[in-house]
Amino acid sequence: MNIDSKMTKELTRVAHLLADAAGEVIAPYFRSEDLGQDNKLVGGYDPVTEADRAAEAAMRDILGRERPDDAILGEEMGEKSGTSGLIWVLDPIDGTRGFVSGTPTWGVLIAVGGQSGPVIGIVDQPYIGERFIGTPQGATLIRGGAGRPIRTRGPRPLSEAVVFTTFPEVGSAQEGAAFRAVAAQAQLTRYGMDCYAYALVACGQVDLVIEAGLNAYDIQGPQALIEAAGGVVTGWDGGPAHNGGRVIAAANTAIHAEALVILQEVLSG
Amino acid sequence: MNIDSKMTKELTRVAHLLADAAGEVIAPYFRSEDLGQDNKLVGGYDPVTEADRAAEAAMRDILGRERPDDAILGEEMGEKSGTSGLIWVLDPIDGTRGFVSGTPTWGVLIAVGGQSGPVIGIVDQPYIGERFIGTPQGATLIRGGAGRPIRTRGPRPLSEAVVFTTFPEVGSAQEGAAFRAVAAQAQLTRYGMDCYAYALVACGQVDLVIEAGLNAYDIQGPQALIEAAGGVVTGWDGGPAHNGGRVIAAANTAIHAEALVILQEVLSG
Repeated sequence: MNIDSKMTKELTRVAHLLADAAGEVIAPYFRSEDLGQDNKLVGGYDPVTEADRAAEAAMRDILGRERPDDAILGEEMGEKSGTSGLIWVLDPIDGTRGFVSGTPTWGVLIAVGGQSGPVIGIVDQPYIGERFIGTPQGATLIRGGAGRPIRTRGPRPLSEAVVFTTFPEVGSAQEGAAFRAVAAQAQLTRYGMDCYAYALVACGQVDLVIEAGLNAYDIQGPQALIEAAGGVVTGWDGGPAHNGGRVIAAANTAIHAEALVILQEVLSG
Repeated sequence: MNIDSKMTKELTRVAHLLADAAGEVIAPYFRSEDLGQDNKLVGGYDPVTEADRAAEAAMRDILGRERPDDAILGEEMGEKSGTSGLIWVLDPIDGTRGFVSGTPTWGVLIAVGGQSGPVIGIVDQPYIGERFIGTPQGATLIRGGAGRPIRTRGPRPLSEAVVFTTFPEVGSAQEGAAFRAVAAQAQLTRYGMDCYAYALVACGQVDLVIEAGLNAYDIQGPQALIEAAGGVVTGWDGGPAHNGGRVIAAANTAIHAEALVILQEVLSG
């Protein structure tokens, strides 16, 4: 979807409003005393889900006011149809298992675009105080009130690359085997970073993130961010990633191609 | 080693000076453009090692001035003997693989104590801006200029516990099997957090961290922190942890005992 610079500016403004609101709603729940599993089991009260739902509600309120004609797809509250051709894709807390463990690796994911994919994406980590945003004008890391342009790494061989995934098992047995075939050739493989790993691709620290079993709302924010920073995000088959499933996020086309060959070899083997 | 409250105050003051100095030295290296593997390979220039060494030198300078009679054990520059009976144990950048990947999971580790173990410990994460400190007076998280008391979690069964380790393989094949036997019974297992996982035990977010192949400087800072917060840190045999090796850090004695039985079963099996 092509959007002009005036519309980009307007959608970016609203995206920031959403991220601000979600971060504010979620903050008191992170590392709160009430976040123990006990509460969930005993009282039927689940503070992570509560934070998740409250943040999505806050974002939907803003969209209802600022962008009433746009569609919405949210993790917690499903789909709302629209008439503008634009769709907002929201994951208020991506990485809930990191969230309940106290690791600041979860994020608020926000994307807006059309049927063919997102054009603006945010990965926001309110505890660290980092907002990564990608638009057709480029990618920026905002921290402490100041923004600086970010870009993905230049090409290097897989043997010198850093690869991330969140869970070592990576989906099904076959998907796990495909991931491990890539990881075995990389210089360094790391785990447990949730959506923060995608932000690290965008800011030039990591070469590849490879995951399976994603939903649209898990990937659209990171995808628009990484594409704006110069990277490539596709399915393991090289097709579109914005509907989720098996996803590879790469710093550049060279490392993307090198990893894709290995993934496909294992999947077809 | 028993130290009185006046000495605790003095050593705490110096420990903060060390953490401040190390953080300041390291900051420009984290996520710097020069941190690519290319530089290391081509020019023989290794910015992580450089940051590590510069930070340790800065801390040793301060100790030479403030605590000339104390011994020092540092990751980068080895041992310096002393006459006071006190030893400072320093790891300027624990988690270098996290550091080169851009994850704010590395930390500056500082401990001071005697031959029987540390009495004051710091885990400092300068990028997030969190300093976790444990002293005989208790444990504190300092952030944004304000400190708040922290404590470990209360007992819960392993089946409801959160377990961390940095690398899924966890040392030797047998050590890995022992870890996985514990992890299999836990509610949630997470990876990749480096020394930050120990800080999460101290602030009540995580029940267990289990690792192998540690050095004294990897564990003494976290150990003093966690003990001050109410937790237990030992070897997998239940003996002292402050010389490194196989280490288990637990939120409380109950979960410590439950995990220890499983570890020892596998090791003796």
